[in-house]
Amino acid sequence: MRAKAPGTAGTAPAAQCRQGNSATGSSELLHTMISHSIFSSSTSSAAERISAILQQEEPGDRKSPLLFVQLNELLSTAAGLAWRETARWIKFEEKVEDGGERWSKPHVPALRLHSLFELRTCLQEGTVLLDLGAHTLPHVAEKAVSAQPEVWEPELQDCLADVLLRQPLHRPTMAPLPGVWSQLAIPHGPDFLSFQLRNRFKKKLLPGAEVASVLVGEVDFLKKPFPVFIRLREAVTLGSLTEVAFPSRFLFILLGPQAKAKAYYEIGRAMATLLTDELFQRIAWQAKHQEDLIAGLDEFLDELAVLPPGKWDPSDRIPPPRCLSSPDKRISMHLREWKSRCNGNTTAAKDRPSPAHLHTSEELERTGRLFGGLIRDIRRKARWYRSDFSDAMHIQCLSAVLYIYLATITNAITFGGMLGDATANMQGVLESFLGTAFTGSIFCLFSGQPLTILSSTGPVLVFERLLFSFSEDYGLDYLEFRLWIGLWVAFFGLALVATEASHLVQYFTRFTEEGFCALISLIFIYDSLKKMLSLAEAFPINWHYRADDVTLYSCTCNLSGPGECELSATAPAHTLSRQSPSTADLALPAEHLPPHFSQSGGHLLGTSCQYVPDIALLSFLLFGGTFLCCTTLKRFKSSRYFPTGLRKLVSDFSIILTILVFCAIDAALGLETPKLLVPSELKPTNPMRGWIIFPFGANPWWICLVSVVPAILVTILIFMDQQITAVIVNRKEHKLKKGAGFHLDFLCVSLLMIVTSVMGLPWYVSATVISLAHMESLRKESTASAPGEQPEFLGIREQRLTGLVVFILTGVSVFLAPILKYIPMPVLYGVFLHMGVVALNSIQFTDRVRLLLMPAKHQPDHLYLRHVPLCRVHLFTFIQLLCLAVLWVIKSTAAAIVFPVMLLALVGIRKALECIFSLHDLSWLDNIMPAAGSKEAEGKLQRKQEEQESYADEESSAILFQPTSSGVKIELLGCS
Amino acid sequence: MRAKAPGTAGTAPAAQCRQGNSATGSSELLHTMISHSIFSSSTSSAAERISAILQQEEPGDRKSPLLFVQLNELLSTAAGLAWRETARWIKFEEKVEDGGERWSKPHVPALRLHSLFELRTCLQEGTVLLDLGAHTLPHVAEKAVSAQPEVWEPELQDCLADVLLRQPLHRPTMAPLPGVWSQLAIPHGPDFLSFQLRNRFKKKLLPGAEVASVLVGEVDFLKKPFPVFIRLREAVTLGSLTEVAFPSRFLFILLGPQAKAKAYYEIGRAMATLLTDELFQRIAWQAKHQEDLIAGLDEFLDELAVLPPGKWDPSDRIPPPRCLSSPDKRISMHLREWKSRCNGNTTAAKDRPSPAHLHTSEELERTGRLFGGLIRDIRRKARWYRSDFSDAMHIQCLSAVLYIYLATITNAITFGGMLGDATANMQGVLESFLGTAFTGSIFCLFSGQPLTILSSTGPVLVFERLLFSFSEDYGLDYLEFRLWIGLWVAFFGLALVATEASHLVQYFTRFTEEGFCALISLIFIYDSLKKMLSLAEAFPINWHYRADDVTLYSCTCNLSGPGECELSATAPAHTLSRQSPSTADLALPAEHLPPHFSQSGGHLLGTSCQYVPDIALLSFLLFGGTFLCCTTLKRFKSSRYFPTGLRKLVSDFSIILTILVFCAIDAALGLETPKLLVPSELKPTNPMRGWIIFPFGANPWWICLVSVVPAILVTILIFMDQQITAVIVNRKEHKLKKGAGFHLDFLCVSLLMIVTSVMGLPWYVSATVISLAHMESLRKESTASAPGEQPEFLGIREQRLTGLVVFILTGVSVFLAPILKYIPMPVLYGVFLHMGVVALNSIQFTDRVRLLLMPAKHQPDHLYLRHVPLCRVHLFTFIQLLCLAVLWVIKSTAAAIVFPVMLLALVGIRKALECIFSLHDLSWLDNIMPAAGSKEAEGKLQRKQEEQESYADEESSAILFQPTSSGVKIELLGCS
Repeated sequence: MRAKAPGTAGTAPAAQCRQGNSATGSSELLHTMISHSIFSSSTSSAAERISAILQQEEPGDRKSPLLFVQLNELLSTAAGLAWRETARWIKFEEKVEDGGERWSKPHVPALRLHSLFELRTCLQEGTVLLDLGAHTLPHVAEKAVSAQPEVWEPELQDCLADVLLRQPLHRPTMAPLPGVWSQLAIPHGPDFLSFQLRNRFKKKLLPGAEVASVLVGEVDFLKKPFPVFIRLREAVTLGSLTEVAFPSRFLFILLGPQAKAKAYYEIGRAMATLLTDELFQRIAWQAKHQEDLIAGLDEFLDELAVLPPGKWDPSDRIPPPRCLSSPDKRISMHLREWKSRCNGNTTAAKDRPSPAHLHTSEELERTGRLFGGLIRDIRRKARWYRSDFSDAMHIQCLSAVLYIYLATITNAITFGGMLGDATANMQGVLESFLGTAFTGSIFCLFSGQPLTILSSTGPVLVFERLLFSFSEDYGLDYLEFRLWIGLWVAFFGLALVATEASHLVQYFTRFTEEGFCALISLIFIYDSLKKMLSLAEAFPINWHYRADDVTLYSCTCNLSGPGECELSATAPAHTLSRQSPSTADLALPAEHLPPHFSQSGGHLLGTSCQYVPDIALLSFLLFGGTFLCCTTLKRFKSSRYFPTGLRKLVSDFSIILTILVFCAIDAALGLETPKLLVPSELKPTNPMRGWIIFPFGANPWWICLVSVVPAILVTILIFMDQQITAVIVNRKEHKLKKGAGFHLDFLCVSLLMIVTSVMGLPWYVSATVISLAHMESLRKESTASAPGEQPEFLGIREQRLTGLVVFILTGVSVFLAPILKYIPMPVLYGVFLHMGVVALNSIQFTDRVRLLLMPAKHQPDHLYLRHVPLCRVHLFTFIQLLCLAVLWVIKSTAAAIVFPVMLLALVGIRKALECIFSLHDLSWLDNIMPAAGSKEAEGKLQRKQEEQESYADEESSAILFQPTSSGVKIELLGCS
Repeated sequence: MRAKAPGTAGTAPAAQCRQGNSATGSSELLHTMISHSIFSSSTSSAAERISAILQQEEPGDRKSPLLFVQLNELLSTAAGLAWRETARWIKFEEKVEDGGERWSKPHVPALRLHSLFELRTCLQEGTVLLDLGAHTLPHVAEKAVSAQPEVWEPELQDCLADVLLRQPLHRPTMAPLPGVWSQLAIPHGPDFLSFQLRNRFKKKLLPGAEVASVLVGEVDFLKKPFPVFIRLREAVTLGSLTEVAFPSRFLFILLGPQAKAKAYYEIGRAMATLLTDELFQRIAWQAKHQEDLIAGLDEFLDELAVLPPGKWDPSDRIPPPRCLSSPDKRISMHLREWKSRCNGNTTAAKDRPSPAHLHTSEELERTGRLFGGLIRDIRRKARWYRSDFSDAMHIQCLSAVLYIYLATITNAITFGGMLGDATANMQGVLESFLGTAFTGSIFCLFSGQPLTILSSTGPVLVFERLLFSFSEDYGLDYLEFRLWIGLWVAFFGLALVATEASHLVQYFTRFTEEGFCALISLIFIYDSLKKMLSLAEAFPINWHYRADDVTLYSCTCNLSGPGECELSATAPAHTLSRQSPSTADLALPAEHLPPHFSQSGGHLLGTSCQYVPDIALLSFLLFGGTFLCCTTLKRFKSSRYFPTGLRKLVSDFSIILTILVFCAIDAALGLETPKLLVPSELKPTNPMRGWIIFPFGANPWWICLVSVVPAILVTILIFMDQQITAVIVNRKEHKLKKGAGFHLDFLCVSLLMIVTSVMGLPWYVSATVISLAHMESLRKESTASAPGEQPEFLGIREQRLTGLVVFILTGVSVFLAPILKYIPMPVLYGVFLHMGVVALNSIQFTDRVRLLLMPAKHQPDHLYLRHVPLCRVHLFTFIQLLCLAVLWVIKSTAAAIVFPVMLLALVGIRKALECIFSLHDLSWLDNIMPAAGSKEAEGKLQRKQEEQESYADEESSAILFQPTSSGVKIELLGCS
């Protein structure tokens, strides 16, 4: 049972690949300790020993139980010596702060190398009891002290056993209070703390977890240290020794003479940290001899990162990293490395598993047959259809429904309001609600990826605006024209599905996505500001108002007949502008005009007629307030105040909360600010249209043919908008199990175009942000995770029910009209400004534009800056800026309507960039397009990609583990 | 010359305190490497050796030259093998990023322990040439390769020499551009880069610096590694080998067989990091044998901090810490530790030098004689008087003058405006300018600490407001009453100087300061908001205005004679309120009233008479905009954009910039917002007063006696305000050489009270923030500091000239009146809100209030939270909140005028807290008061303080090295 061996490391069992050791003298130990040296190609004996231990493991053993490590210190109290827990580990260290009532934040345990060396001596000189058969603490103590009778005299043994059996000290000060306090309580002993309190920390541990206790302290009767390492044959519960009621497996005891308590504590920490190491845990489990443990320690030493003295403050606590490579990976890398070392290969360290390719997936492969992709999609999804409903039976889905419902109606209100604005209410809020509800439900029932949420999106809104003004300019009937376009788009859509065009999305690289997104964001920002300025025109302020002259301001109705000169001098500018929405772009209803004015045909006369007091300035206050409030509430998630759940809730509902708050303010003030226009009955917003659009009548017959041209543009737009979202939603990092359905999704979108065009409802495609939020709210995560460790992401609840319920609720919400009419337009503009700014901030392009303003030494440590020269980064940014400027100019001129083609041209420009930039640079600044030209380039690409993969692995996992806010904000507005 | 020794460490020369080594077997090496073990009380041979080396040092050698370390790697290029610099160190590591055109940010070099072990083997196995006499690189190379002829055959020697003499590779891509680019250039070889570019990095190095070059690489002709360590006898310039044109002292060469380039690179990094260690540098300088170097490495190993594998991402670059303990301290600690270890004492690690006591200084000691302190002050300062002018001859003083001048007039404008507001223009902006200029100049000429700047401060402003409303309420003449108070205050002030009362400031602990500051900040916030609401009352908005009814709104002047009923129905509320400043607290001039109204005595009639459009809302926009703009510009300093100098400039001038911007906006809009009132001629702001206040006449004669009571209050206020600032300014951490003059300062302030009271100017005391800003702008810092290292603070340019010039300029600025009258009052209120919020945010009390809202696990890692239980922290905060509430209530009731006494009562409450809190807790949450009660308590205190000092050392240096923003913002407004 007791394995006492000489100090030098024994011969290893797996020495077959040893090639001779050239080390001499005292460096022998170093060679034992370090696994491979530049001076010898041999594997060290420690490494060999470990390799042998790990290879011995049966496959069933692989999953060793989670180990909870606690450090008990021997403290002298009024009642004599007592043990007290002062630190604990699962993955990271938490220590009890001075004052004893607070656990520190989890942090990376920084040790002194010295303590590890001392620990090594402890393991060499001390007692090591492997597979001790004992079932109670007194039994364990007795065996531990009597293991080396030749060293420890009987009276010392008694003293030692007495110290070991001292009761753990209960926290003497006060009973834990609820709330804040209960988190700080140190659970100690079942007679003191309730079972519930124990449970609080227990939930961090998986069932079957085991405990390792490290006991250190100084006693007056010892002359030299007494170190014991014990592994129990069977894990047993050792009563109040441990914080949690889990069975104990390992014990490490270090008692020693006085005046070195600090040193014992540090050695105890070193042992505890060692026991949290996954590789050492395996060795501790499998060890047959004392030397196995020492070999494990040596291997641990070999892998240490060290920080030089005097360059770093050891009292700084290093926070746990956001993502860590899995321990299994590390261990298998070890095995591979040792193996390859035997074969004389040294590149093992670079041999990381390749990251998931974000853009190419099995679903996008071409079959070469007509509708081949679609058929595959239907086959793939059909077998999940039943489970798409049964999988929704979880409480999480309920909260997802509420969240996504609110997000959906927010979108319906804001986009509906903007669409109404853009099309003189040909499509308004009511149409937006109806369209969203109808298309959304259909899509959820029949689509390939029901996790995506259909919504109005920025690009479509921009196009509708262009289409409406085009129709106005050429005297066409907008809705009829649009109907033909929609029908053609559906036709082209079917053709694209038939030819499996979805596989082309692989050519939409980051360059294209960002150009797309930046343009739309800028349009949102520009439009919301322009709207506010037009409000100021619609409600003019008398800047020259003087309170002294209060009696000089008046406005009377002159009924004496129209006089040209009088009209031009005192024309009521704001009433005129409010009459024609095309001037001020504001659709105030006609009945808001002064009644006696429209009845009599008279003219307003006076100095105050052309001014409306206060409304413009209040609108600006509401606008600014909404923007700031949205931004602040959105950021509230990362503040320190209040519990995480509450913060997340506030942040997630920031927009709806802001709208509510500012509507309340506006209503309380009572000023006549311009409001959202919603019909109170279930009839089209604009009374001049019906529910069904007739294909002929208002326009010349040949319009149905001419609409092919705009239809091509819309097809490009819809295709890009839909497919980029689909790619993002179906990314491998989301761990979807039921597969994607690019072709089926696009088929649904195309067919829905027919219905929406016929009924004059808005067009819908998948919206990125809301879809990501939907997935976010359906995340499955591992519940038990060590303090400081990020919970593991397990996948998404893939089902159709949440989406379906959301859209049914949206449909019911049509009856919200009496509430919606209280929403002031400046508040909606503020929300749109916020959306535009957030979307613009979320893209790497914006980061790179910012770099232009930063001195090199203040630039953040972006990975691409480590690999691409700054001048190339700036050149790339300049080209993107140039493209954006050209797009903006095109959008602003008469050629505006061709802008979808220009967006597509971005793909070509990106292709052309390959002449200017090396593939290496592009791989950092952008993605790589498939089949990048010649064979030579391909080889180059492959080489560079391999190099990149070692980083990309870290990068992609970093993306995965990013807090959800940045995950969601990738493209708000669904602008790509 | 060549010291080749066997692998085992030799016997140490200083072995007299060795007590026997109990280690056996392979742990022998560990005992050689680690300096003291729990298993033996002996000092390790490495430690003994080092101790001997360090003690050998002659005192003159102490200052070893700065060492610049660079790592050259052997890379294969198109033109064959070439050396290229890929990393460099002064204190921290900077590496060349992939792409080769960018230096990384300086970071703490994290090594793998493995490489250090390998380096140890290199030093053991390789050639070590100490004091090599060679003057050129070929000479060095020849000696290096021929040092071990028995190992390296002649043809190998030739190959090695050939490789070593390869020219360093010049950066091939492009010539550096100016601006951003030049910072990225890698200076390589004098034929390529201009001298100026070299200089860019050179200025980081002190004259006399030396270079250590580490050369690593793989070559095809070697079968085993070739490591050489060289110390040159005389430092020689080795041409283009080094980046900077400094002489080289050390070279470390490691060439080896192929396929292990990564390992050589890591060993090279380990060597370079080792060479940046101050302790190792000394040893490398003094080393006589190879073993000395190895002992130095072992000592380095022993002090390492290590991070366990798998818990931390090694690609994370750890930023340099803000403050580091000085290397000298570390080395002397080592010496002490070894010495104490020989004496069996183990507490050496705790023996840190005690920090400066912030509150007790030599200047505050009592002499026990009348005016004893004052006489000492005058004696102390007199001998510096001449140098107080000659020391100002530096360009830095010019920029300090400009900066402090702008800050002073900003203060004069804002406080002048607020004072005018509070006292119905009895003291206005003009008085503020004159008073500031006069008192400031006098103080600069005669005070004890001319670095402090006199200014109006928050507490005085609050008191003046109370005094004015008291005078109004009791029908007293404000200025005459105030004159008597001022005279009494001066008298009490003299008495306080005579009795050396300044030594009492030691009782003003953080508790008192924070109570004081929090109250004033809250008053500022509350007042600015109240002012804005009263503006809204003064310019009422017609919330029920309907644009449809535009013809119904009018206002006409009814001259038919005063009719009671008509007046009450349509009374122009805003004109009434503007007439009486006491109602709306707004001092609009009488001539702004409607002319025909005041002339005719008629009444305004109509629905629009009582409303003023737009002005209130625009005021709110200006107010909010000013606040946000101030806050944003202030924070701009810590943004990443634009060079540091520009950011600092914008941040320092944030308030004046904001005022300018919003004045411009207001002027451009042209609306009649309420403006700052400044007389255009050099006469008192209020035309009802003269320049000299007569002591009798307006008030009853006994007022001169009654004013003793308020005078006591003002004396308390002035004393607290002045002395707390003086203590902060004279803190030891500012390294002032000419000493303080607390008594002399207070004498000046008291005497100036007489002048300001007689002339009806505001009262002045030292203002904390502006004084700290003054010192900040006169900081002397060491110029050369290693990348990543903070520059060393050397002291302050202590002189009287900058202050004097500032105040003379302020006096000249009286003629700015035509410009000042464009400043809208809402902008000033915005500035005051900003000041209040900043001051409130700067105190620890606010941090603790925030803790109440935070879940324990999200709380920041404040030092006091590590040491005081959270419930005690909360209790302390609650008590402070309670005190604040009581102060607020007192301030708001009729007893308002006694609030200075209540402030003083805080000192008593603080004293009483010692019954509730332990001195340990108070020492973390507050400062310790002198003579804390009984002997027992004192002993306790001392013990606790000792404990604290080990941390306080870190803390105080952290405070010292904090970015200036937080230093300055300690108490904006000079509110304590």
